[in-house]
Amino acid sequence: MTVGEIASWLNGEVVGDSTKDITRVAKIEEARAGELTFLANPKYERFLSSTKASVVLVSKAQQLDLAHGKDANGAPAFIRVEDPYIGFLRVLDLLTPKVDPFPEGIHPSAIIAKSAKLGKNVVLGANVVVDEGAVIGDETKISHGCIIGKSVQIGAGCLLYPRVTVYHQCRIGSRVIIHSGTVIGSDGFGWAPKPDGTYEKIPQLGIVIVEDDVSIGANCCIDRATVGETVIKRGVKLDNLIQIAHNCTVGEDTVIAAQTGLAGSTKIGKHNMIGGQVGFAGHMEMADNSIFLAQSGVTKSFTQPGQMYTGYPAKEVKKSRRIEAALRSLPELAREFEELKKKVAQLFEKLK
Amino acid sequence: MTVGEIASWLNGEVVGDSTKDITRVAKIEEARAGELTFLANPKYERFLSSTKASVVLVSKAQQLDLAHGKDANGAPAFIRVEDPYIGFLRVLDLLTPKVDPFPEGIHPSAIIAKSAKLGKNVVLGANVVVDEGAVIGDETKISHGCIIGKSVQIGAGCLLYPRVTVYHQCRIGSRVIIHSGTVIGSDGFGWAPKPDGTYEKIPQLGIVIVEDDVSIGANCCIDRATVGETVIKRGVKLDNLIQIAHNCTVGEDTVIAAQTGLAGSTKIGKHNMIGGQVGFAGHMEMADNSIFLAQSGVTKSFTQPGQMYTGYPAKEVKKSRRIEAALRSLPELAREFEELKKKVAQLFEKLK
Amino acid sequence: MTVGEIASWLNGEVVGDSTKDITRVAKIEEARAGELTFLANPKYERFLSSTKASVVLVSKAQQLDLAHGKDANGAPAFIRVEDPYIGFLRVLDLLTPKVDPFPEGIHPSAIIAKSAKLGKNVVLGANVVVDEGAVIGDETKISHGCIIGKSVQIGAGCLLYPRVTVYHQCRIGSRVIIHSGTVIGSDGFGWAPKPDGTYEKIPQLGIVIVEDDVSIGANCCIDRATVGETVIKRGVKLDNLIQIAHNCTVGEDTVIAAQTGLAGSTKIGKHNMIGGQVGFAGHMEMADNSIFLAQSGVTKSFTQPGQMYTGYPAKEVKKSRRIEAALRSLPELAREFEELKKKVAQLFEKLK
Repeated sequence: MTVGEIASWLNGEVVGDSTKDITRVAKIEEARAGELTFLANPKYERFLSSTKASVVLVSKAQQLDLAHGKDANGAPAFIRVEDPYIGFLRVLDLLTPKVDPFPEGIHPSAIIAKSAKLGKNVVLGANVVVDEGAVIGDETKISHGCIIGKSVQIGAGCLLYPRVTVYHQCRIGSRVIIHSGTVIGSDGFGWAPKPDGTYEKIPQLGIVIVEDDVSIGANCCIDRATVGETVIKRGVKLDNLIQIAHNCTVGEDTVIAAQTGLAGSTKIGKHNMIGGQVGFAGHMEMADNSIFLAQSGVTKSFTQPGQMYTGYPAKEVKKSRRIEAALRSLPELAREFEELKKKVAQLFEKLK
Repeated sequence: MTVGEIASWLNGEVVGDSTKDITRVAKIEEARAGELTFLANPKYERFLSSTKASVVLVSKAQQLDLAHGKDANGAPAFIRVEDPYIGFLRVLDLLTPKVDPFPEGIHPSAIIAKSAKLGKNVVLGANVVVDEGAVIGDETKISHGCIIGKSVQIGAGCLLYPRVTVYHQCRIGSRVIIHSGTVIGSDGFGWAPKPDGTYEKIPQLGIVIVEDDVSIGANCCIDRATVGETVIKRGVKLDNLIQIAHNCTVGEDTVIAAQTGLAGSTKIGKHNMIGGQVGFAGHMEMADNSIFLAQSGVTKSFTQPGQMYTGYPAKEVKKSRRIEAALRSLPELAREFEELKKKVAQLFEKLK
Repeated sequence: MTVGEIASWLNGEVVGDSTKDITRVAKIEEARAGELTFLANPKYERFLSSTKASVVLVSKAQQLDLAHGKDANGAPAFIRVEDPYIGFLRVLDLLTPKVDPFPEGIHPSAIIAKSAKLGKNVVLGANVVVDEGAVIGDETKISHGCIIGKSVQIGAGCLLYPRVTVYHQCRIGSRVIIHSGTVIGSDGFGWAPKPDGTYEKIPQLGIVIVEDDVSIGANCCIDRATVGETVIKRGVKLDNLIQIAHNCTVGEDTVIAAQTGLAGSTKIGKHNMIGGQVGFAGHMEMADNSIFLAQSGVTKSFTQPGQMYTGYPAKEVKKSRRIEAALRSLPELAREFEELKKKVAQLFEKLK
């Protein structure tokens, strides 16, 4: 691909020679002729004069001396784009030879109920089950061994990797990605104690709604609501092995790392960033733009937006760090305290 | 359904008009005509005089002035039952239009070994595998894609959701529920170190026994015993993504929330309540009626029944809370300590 | 089997009667006639004179008075081997009647792409999918419902239990064991923030390499690299529900217990021992022979080999234990501190 072709594909503008041929991408300090690189972090600007890359993606907003971009003697061309790193990722993806992980068409072993409805160009892998009343949108690809329950609705352009289960009646939006082994819509964990010490199952009558542009990792569990809906809002990204309990809501564009769990009816705000192995108690509410560091244990609602939390029970990071520092010097404090007690005793002795 | 029909279905007795028609359920403060509600918590008694519900489930043990129950002018009827909340759940379930998540009959794609034995009215979904010597009890339903290993025994009236694996020789009781993705009977994690730094696999020759009325969530792992049995006792309820290692025993009617893990050979007593993301070290024993709060790390046996634990290493809640409070004021304590040291130095100065 | 036959099978040498018949194994203090036991831990030597076992495995290195081994009157024979416990495990495995969990041959329902290549004696269970370009080595057994993606390479003598997914292009070595529900090669969790608050997917173009003699438990997730490889080195043993993120490396012969997670690009050294529910932050490096106790939260690199860590943030055990002890007496310290303040105030009063 030429620099010009890449620029037009990225909606960018070329400064310099647009005819150079680009075959690979690389880091700015390692790139060679024929390679594309990018400049996003200002601390890499020092490599601009020495890079051997044929073309550098730079930000439209960046003030750069691109004079050498106009020099044909081996100096790089530039493409000005909105976001150089995003542009780099897109070119990386474009230029990498890839195997399409998905099958094509509808495999003859797929089992499709008569009342199910498939959109245009739907892909169903081997041994996929699409149960009664399920509806699958255009261009959605469902890989081998997935189970799509009764009356499930799945939008357009989704990618379900092998062995995903979607329980009856759950609703998945468009452009949703779900990785292998994930279970959507299993029963919420609701048990009413009986006088004899055993438990009666609380019927789990609700559903799960996964909105557009959500991505869910492998071996996650998202439970259906007791009544109503468990909701994963637009744009949410979930890593692997995550537990979302019944009646939770995860707000738009929130990102959650692996092995984190939410207990029942907890609401996470928009655009939260949640680390791995975090636990949230039930029936709580988190403000927008909150950050929870890995392994936090969150036992109460945090309603002020934009704060960062850590530890168990989770506290604002500033508070936790102060306690952590004091804790590190606690053995020393305890030793000094014993000394001070002796000194005070000496003083009493002297004053007798 | 009429009030009278509901009462007779619940083994309850009507006070008031038993001919009213009931179509839905609601909370006592929101219920309207045609709806059933319940009164379990005394603090909701104040709504009794104002509720618009057509019928209220009340406890046989409750002392209530049900006079207005006899009034036909819009005042509610009552049904006296053993447990109003349990009754409410049953009516909720009864009145909610539902999709049966399970298939019917035996799907032609199910693969059943010749030596396997199926009880009456067994349901097997698409692509289910029932391996050699497996025995499935009457009325048990096994959904799409489940793998039932060699010589597995499953009792009557069980529900296995899609894509459950039961390894060879494991034994499942009756009325057991297992959700999608769960694995029963994988090898215990046993490795003997060899002089060259590699490990020799300790053969895992035992099985898993899941007793009657157990419920297991999605994507759990219950390992087979090294020798003997890993046992999940009658009535235990497990949430999602739980790890039960080889040779563990979980006592009757114990409830465990998501992402908790037990290391090998640990025994949990009867009727424990265990929060999410709790970890138990191996070879320990927990007394009956113990409570472990979420994210506890349990490093030793607790033999006194009925206590509550939290933190890492897990301590009785009272002790933990005292330490937690002291910890919060630790930075302040450290600051005051420095001041006090100065004062004591001043005193020594004065006495020189 | 006779003592002589067992000895020759174990490459051991008999001291005493090699004609005795052995039918079972047992602990040294419980063993009876016809049973084999072993002596590894010196504190069990006291049982040597009283054991009723017919034969005892002992170490070639052990200095024992085996005189009674020569006595035919009920005293045990001995077999000298390199490692008595390993020998015991092998005999235990040999003498236990077992069901082979794996099917035989290639099930007619297995779906094998034309371009896939199968070695000699490969076993494929029911509904296994082997996708285009996949290569499976000799004697490898793949149980029911496994999905082997496009261009996957699997070595010889592997055991894949039911419902394992291996994504496209990943490479598995020889003699690898993978338990049910595990997912190898799902996308790494990489998302680039965009100015509008949504995220752009970072393409995950790399693969997973699982080297020889690795064992992986049930429902684990090992993500493919963004670029390059996520590597599980030779001899690593993983328990259940473990998360290994993109671009991680786990060093040779490292053992990791259940529910532990590694964030992206972290490198674990050789021969680490890592407890359950441990979390590692991303982009860190751990030295060889490190030990991490259960539930540790590891937030920085530890470069000195052979140390042991615990707690959050993880510290050397000695340091953590000192802090933990100080913490336990913190409420008492706070109380005593208040007393001391009063005493110092008294002193100032006296000196006025």
